[in-house]
Amino acid sequence: MLYQVEMVVKPPKEMDASTFDEIKSREKSYSQDLQRQGKWRHIWRIAGQYANISIFDVESHEELHNLLLALPLYPYMDITVTPLCRHPSSIHESDC
Amino acid sequence: MLYQVEMVVKPPKEMDASTFDEIKSREKSYSQDLQRQGKWRHIWRIAGQYANISIFDVESHEELHNLLLALPLYPYMDITVTPLCRHPSSIHESDC
Amino acid sequence: MLYQVEMVVKPPKEMDASTFDEIKSREKSYSQDLQRQGKWRHIWRIAGQYANISIFDVESHEELHNLLLALPLYPYMDITVTPLCRHPSSIHESDC
Amino acid sequence: MLYQVEMVVKPPKEMDASTFDEIKSREKSYSQDLQRQGKWRHIWRIAGQYANISIFDVESHEELHNLLLALPLYPYMDITVTPLCRHPSSIHESDC
Amino acid sequence: MLYQVEMVVKPPKEMDASTFDEIKSREKSYSQDLQRQGKWRHIWRIAGQYANISIFDVESHEELHNLLLALPLYPYMDITVTPLCRHPSSIHESDC
Amino acid sequence: MLYQVEMVVKPPKEMDASTFDEIKSREKSYSQDLQRQGKWRHIWRIAGQYANISIFDVESHEELHNLLLALPLYPYMDITVTPLCRHPSSIHESDC
Amino acid sequence: MLYQVEMVVKPPKEMDASTFDEIKSREKSYSQDLQRQGKWRHIWRIAGQYANISIFDVESHEELHNLLLALPLYPYMDITVTPLCRHPSSIHESDC
Amino acid sequence: MLYQVEMVVKPPKEMDASTFDEIKSREKSYSQDLQRQGKWRHIWRIAGQYANISIFDVESHEELHNLLLALPLYPYMDITVTPLCRHPSSIHESDC
Amino acid sequence: MLYQVEMVVKPPKEMDASTFDEIKSREKSYSQDLQRQGKWRHIWRIAGQYANISIFDVESHEELHNLLLALPLYPYMDITVTPLCRHPSSIHESDC
Amino acid sequence: MLYQVEMVVKPPKEMDASTFDEIKSREKSYSQDLQRQGKWRHIWRIAGQYANISIFDVESHEELHNLLLALPLYPYMDITVTPLCRHPSSIHESDC
Repeated sequence: MLYQVEMVVKPPKEMDASTFDEIKSREKSYSQDLQRQGKWRHIWRIAGQYANISIFDVESHEELHNLLLALPLYPYMDITVTPLCRHPSSIHESDC
Repeated sequence: MLYQVEMVVKPPKEMDASTFDEIKSREKSYSQDLQRQGKWRHIWRIAGQYANISIFDVESHEELHNLLLALPLYPYMDITVTPLCRHPSSIHESDC
Repeated sequence: MLYQVEMVVKPPKEMDASTFDEIKSREKSYSQDLQRQGKWRHIWRIAGQYANISIFDVESHEELHNLLLALPLYPYMDITVTPLCRHPSSIHESDC
Repeated sequence: MLYQVEMVVKPPKEMDASTFDEIKSREKSYSQDLQRQGKWRHIWRIAGQYANISIFDVESHEELHNLLLALPLYPYMDITVTPLCRHPSSIHESDC
Repeated sequence: MLYQVEMVVKPPKEMDASTFDEIKSREKSYSQDLQRQGKWRHIWRIAGQYANISIFDVESHEELHNLLLALPLYPYMDITVTPLCRHPSSIHESDC
Repeated sequence: MLYQVEMVVKPPKEMDASTFDEIKSREKSYSQDLQRQGKWRHIWRIAGQYANISIFDVESHEELHNLLLALPLYPYMDITVTPLCRHPSSIHESDC
Repeated sequence: MLYQVEMVVKPPKEMDASTFDEIKSREKSYSQDLQRQGKWRHIWRIAGQYANISIFDVESHEELHNLLLALPLYPYMDITVTPLCRHPSSIHESDC
Repeated sequence: MLYQVEMVVKPPKEMDASTFDEIKSREKSYSQDLQRQGKWRHIWRIAGQYANISIFDVESHEELHNLLLALPLYPYMDITVTPLCRHPSSIHESDC
Repeated sequence: MLYQVEMVVKPPKEMDASTFDEIKSREKSYSQDLQRQGKWRHIWRIAGQYANISIFDVESHEELHNLLLALPLYPYMDITVTPLCRHPSSIHESDC
Repeated sequence: MLYQVEMVVKPPKEMDASTFDEIKSREKSYSQDLQRQGKWRHIWRIAGQYANISIFDVESHEELHNLLLALPLYPYMDITVTPLCRHPSSIHESDC
């Protein structure tokens, strides 16, 4: 099942740069791991923003929730979830 | 270049059903034609809404503008455009 | 899978009362049929509003979308969909 | 009488993790106690959010107010209260 | 139990003045009848607006809902309901 | 002259509890003193919120402004002021 | 007592131009009459908008309400009222 | 040229009272100096708020910008600027 | 003096196409005439929208107001005006 | 390709003035360097605000994103990006 997830990062100003870099590095590994498993289908940067638009493909709301809560950057993100379904005009096998 | 486009349809209440069906049928052909050309990369229905989230891949703002204005449903849509770029964490060749 | 759905009805002012009553009567049958099937788990009126808060239990976004679009009052509703999952503090078997 | 209550938690960034864990643990006991008494009828997690949607069944606004203020997480929550009443289409005895 | 109810009237432009006057006249009688019964405790005009702020004192959400839906102007109103309870600083017997 | 005043309290997180308790205690005395003088006509708690809805009866905007600024909790409040006048449907002598 | 009043005009599209011109002409006379009486202290056009910002000086909320409701354009206006009082930094006798 | 300027002050909570009093005292002198020069035409307190509505009369956007940036309270203000022009209904010489 | 003006066109649905085309044609001539006079410095289409962002260079708010009100599409536009001034970092002679 | 970029600066209150001045000085050099390269076409101050409206002319969303992220003030800015394209009414060669 597909979900659009928009993630807006609010970096904590009081945190020292190296700690935050370490969190971002864990975030990247975690994201790429989920991409390899096919659960995190797409991720794009919103131009000019510290934010991304992603497409997740998971079994249930529960699985989505658990994946998102485990994001290393989760405490510093505003997250919006939009459930998606196949569009009758789509010709792409993968749009569902 | 990639753009996320969200289209929310507000069907005109005063229009008779067959006229609107004909517009929707032209919309579908038009959308599928652009999908075949690779310009309309993805289209998903937002669950419960008469609305879609789409990804376009075009040469310029100009091309995007012209494609959107030619949508048969354009006069009955609220449209939001978000420019996207490659995310440093993406492992997918096609995410750009 | 569970979804909270909020439906706000905007009755069409130009429609004659008996036509609208007939639509509302079909809406009621349709809703009660889905309640009997266990797909429409709860429905409450928001005090003072022509609006309800409902809990749906369906297999997929797709099924939810199709059920909602078939609502006789759908053309006259603003709909908000929120995907829900089991809360770790819940003691109720049925809260999932 | 029924109320929908939406609770969005804003964890205090400056608090050390063990103190916050202790508050969350008290919150869970408190919630489960009210669930057992039948006052906190339902609680669901909103997918992807540190937030829940709950249904309370209490005697009065006063009782609801006092229950909510006693939540251990209350100082870290944004709360929205919506009074609900029986929907004429409901077939469920318990939807009131 | 007390509720603040804010009512904003949107007069239907297409209705002839005498029909609307007749509705307003029924609204006034209805309101004064409920005031006499003690259910509609206060009603004030918001300065400069076709809107009022009212305090209702009723047995339940259900009773409030039924009273509001029976307002002759209900189809032309936006209504906001806020449940109120006794304030610990109040010295007035009647503030509850 | 009447004003509806809505006060939403945002308790300062960094303040120690006893200092804040002392401010709240002064707030209560101040409020009750104004209630006794008839200037603070009503005060109700909004259910579930650290907020109240009040009705003031004062000589002028100036007097209202000075009374509000002297609230011990004023630095921690968001305040909304709505000027009210007698409603033509009111039957209560005191609704003005 | 002073009030800032912002008036945004929404001309009715379906009305013929000469009827609307006649309403605007009555509006102008009415406004100038109140200006001469000193009740409508200032009126400025918001650049680029069919809207004005005005300062009224009247005895009470009631008087303001009655003056505004009698505006010939009142049915076609969105009105915002802000009560003003003397600023401690003002050196102008007339700023109160 | 005229501008309406609305200034909402957000006093810095962490600043000690005497430092802030000193800033406010400089603000007052600065404001009164500009009033004497005729550049700051009007200033009114918004009832119940730490905010004012002012009318400026300056040569250009540039001059307005420089005057506002030099406000001692500028770092603690949210400012809204609205360009005004003479209203065709105004009878006051000074409303332009 | 410079102003950014954003114009969003809401085409009247009930108007026949040829009448609206005639209005658009007059709008174009009018715009190009002002561009040639140097008063309408820039005009860009917002991608995907029936809307433009423009830069005007005029003598006063009054002149801007009169130019905008004379737009043939004015009755079908939502307009936002933002006064601009020279930025201290600009190296372009024409950015003022 | 053209983009309107609006940048609103939120100066960090806790930073000492000389550190912030140094950041602003680097911002100015960086901005002027991009202006000289023709990538940052226009920059205007919004009157009364610590904010600017700019026009960028770059090859791609990617290039825009990288230029904006490298702004020394980026961590202290809210940024809004609007893709622009040539307007059919424009007579200026440079409006594209």
